[in-house]
Amino acid sequence: MKLEEIIKRIQPVGDEWVLKARERTSHLALPPRALGRLHDIAEHLCGILETLEPDVSSKVFLVMAGDHGVASDGVSAFPQEVTGEMVKNFLRGGAGINVLARHVGAEVAVVDMGIIPDVVTVDSRHRFHSCKVDRGTHNIAKGPAMTRNQAEQSVLHGFNLASELFSSGARLLGTGDMGIGNTTPSAALGAVLTRTSAELMVGRGTGIDDDGLKRKTETIRRAIEINRPNAEDGLDALAKVGGFEIGGIAGCILAAACARRPVVIDGFISTAGALVAQALCPAAIDYVFAGHCSQEAGHRRMLQHLGLEPILDLRMRLGEGTGAALAMGIIEGAVRVFREVLTFEEAGVSQG
Amino acid sequence: MKLEEIIKRIQPVGDEWVLKARERTSHLALPPRALGRLHDIAEHLCGILETLEPDVSSKVFLVMAGDHGVASDGVSAFPQEVTGEMVKNFLRGGAGINVLARHVGAEVAVVDMGIIPDVVTVDSRHRFHSCKVDRGTHNIAKGPAMTRNQAEQSVLHGFNLASELFSSGARLLGTGDMGIGNTTPSAALGAVLTRTSAELMVGRGTGIDDDGLKRKTETIRRAIEINRPNAEDGLDALAKVGGFEIGGIAGCILAAACARRPVVIDGFISTAGALVAQALCPAAIDYVFAGHCSQEAGHRRMLQHLGLEPILDLRMRLGEGTGAALAMGIIEGAVRVFREVLTFEEAGVSQG
Repeated sequence: MKLEEIIKRIQPVGDEWVLKARERTSHLALPPRALGRLHDIAEHLCGILETLEPDVSSKVFLVMAGDHGVASDGVSAFPQEVTGEMVKNFLRGGAGINVLARHVGAEVAVVDMGIIPDVVTVDSRHRFHSCKVDRGTHNIAKGPAMTRNQAEQSVLHGFNLASELFSSGARLLGTGDMGIGNTTPSAALGAVLTRTSAELMVGRGTGIDDDGLKRKTETIRRAIEINRPNAEDGLDALAKVGGFEIGGIAGCILAAACARRPVVIDGFISTAGALVAQALCPAAIDYVFAGHCSQEAGHRRMLQHLGLEPILDLRMRLGEGTGAALAMGIIEGAVRVFREVLTFEEAGVSQG
Repeated sequence: MKLEEIIKRIQPVGDEWVLKARERTSHLALPPRALGRLHDIAEHLCGILETLEPDVSSKVFLVMAGDHGVASDGVSAFPQEVTGEMVKNFLRGGAGINVLARHVGAEVAVVDMGIIPDVVTVDSRHRFHSCKVDRGTHNIAKGPAMTRNQAEQSVLHGFNLASELFSSGARLLGTGDMGIGNTTPSAALGAVLTRTSAELMVGRGTGIDDDGLKRKTETIRRAIEINRPNAEDGLDALAKVGGFEIGGIAGCILAAACARRPVVIDGFISTAGALVAQALCPAAIDYVFAGHCSQEAGHRRMLQHLGLEPILDLRMRLGEGTGAALAMGIIEGAVRVFREVLTFEEAGVSQG
């Protein structure tokens, strides 16, 4: 499918099933809406899935990896090789996202959206997809990260992979990321797409010091100044100051909206992907749950711009999908409450 | 064991194993402390359990039920019969705590700490313990809730039940409550033990209106005025303005501290129990995790007084243990991260 066609197919979530679901919640043997956000989450899922029997039992993560030319500007506390090394770690099952996905019963698939090295999948325990758009982006402080065509390609790769997962039975998708340097393009996209200054968007990522933070802010400011990304044009912003994995994540969100399935985004990088998806098609955000609020400065501002309230706030800032994984546990709990708590009548409990 | 003896046995959590655990965390293949509170939680568990291999796989809830004389003052939106009806619902497995405990793989045991009706356990799917101290408390707006002896009895019942669970293998205890009217004694205990006004402690409980809220505040103020509970004496405060299930929860916390095992408290009522436990033995709070911040006004103030930071904040206000159950999922995730994420060396990942 072409991107234009995808965008045309996406419909906002209507309130018909949400209202039906609220009516059902009102019969559960508990004080009115006493489980707070669990009710909101379950009812929103009913709206997305157009059912009173929402099912999120089959959960899958797409962990998107990409390298970033801007890493050479000293914007990260880790060397660029770590991107490829961590992809290997994901495939062997030893990283944070592997552990937390196992914990909530979600599968993990790893995607090379554009890392520098080639991936060897000899001892892989997980599905791997090669969608290498290029061997890393160009340095955004010197020019565009990628061509417009590559930006579209990265979104379509994410869209196709996620659509495939939904067709083969996934009921809840989680997004994850890996890419040394990727808080820099994410902050740049955040600044552009939420109309916020670089200063308010930039954070310490994996842990740079004060000097590094100044340098990073300057890099982001320069990237925006040189490239003049168009905030009204998601592909333009992605091409000029984004990254391949960020485009892939935007594609995942469009796929969820197109298939009318829920997607849980993770932290700063995934949310930059959601901002790109929103710029391409605002209605797509109706299908998105914000897994958590990252400790990365600027993340809350991004979420506010999207109108999303994070489920968790545990001072996490790892990425990989780890915050989304823990949030899936809460979302599944919300669904079970909706479906399994007895009504006043069934339980023989007097109403207030 | 006598209460005095229990209190003497409780030791604070030292920092030796916490420091060893922090050292281990620093080798995990992720940026320094990038999983935020998950690291803190796992390391605190290492401190409690004095091990680098914390295990919280066997999880049990004690859901403590009691009736409250003050319910006759119109402080609740629900009639008093609901306490007994909900106990039945717990035993059949149809309530919020049953569903969320199943979701996180925790068992549920239900305790009659002092409800008015007798409990019939014919179709019970869950363990039931009868520790009926009395058929409901007296109206605290007119005099003490119970005798000092009954207060001690309620704490010891909770202590004995929880100690028994720990001896038979429980690794993580959750506290839950049921009792129509019990936000009123909890708010009274909160006001007394945190030295806060009734106005700041009182909330809408299961959902009373503005008039009800005024009446409830007045009731709490009167209860404190008439009874003059001693903030320095946990048993005195519990006897004068508390409840049997609140005493039972305090006993659970003392049992956890005595057995050096972690306990997750739920919302407003469980936290009132924790305040009683703190008044009896401040070191006991070292063993407590605050599952969530309830929507009930005053809960945050209570948690601040205990020096506890809630794990979740999902606008829940049901009680029963539901917030603690969801938090157990996070705690178990934290343990899995600590134990299963590979180190830089194991994963072959370069350090920053």
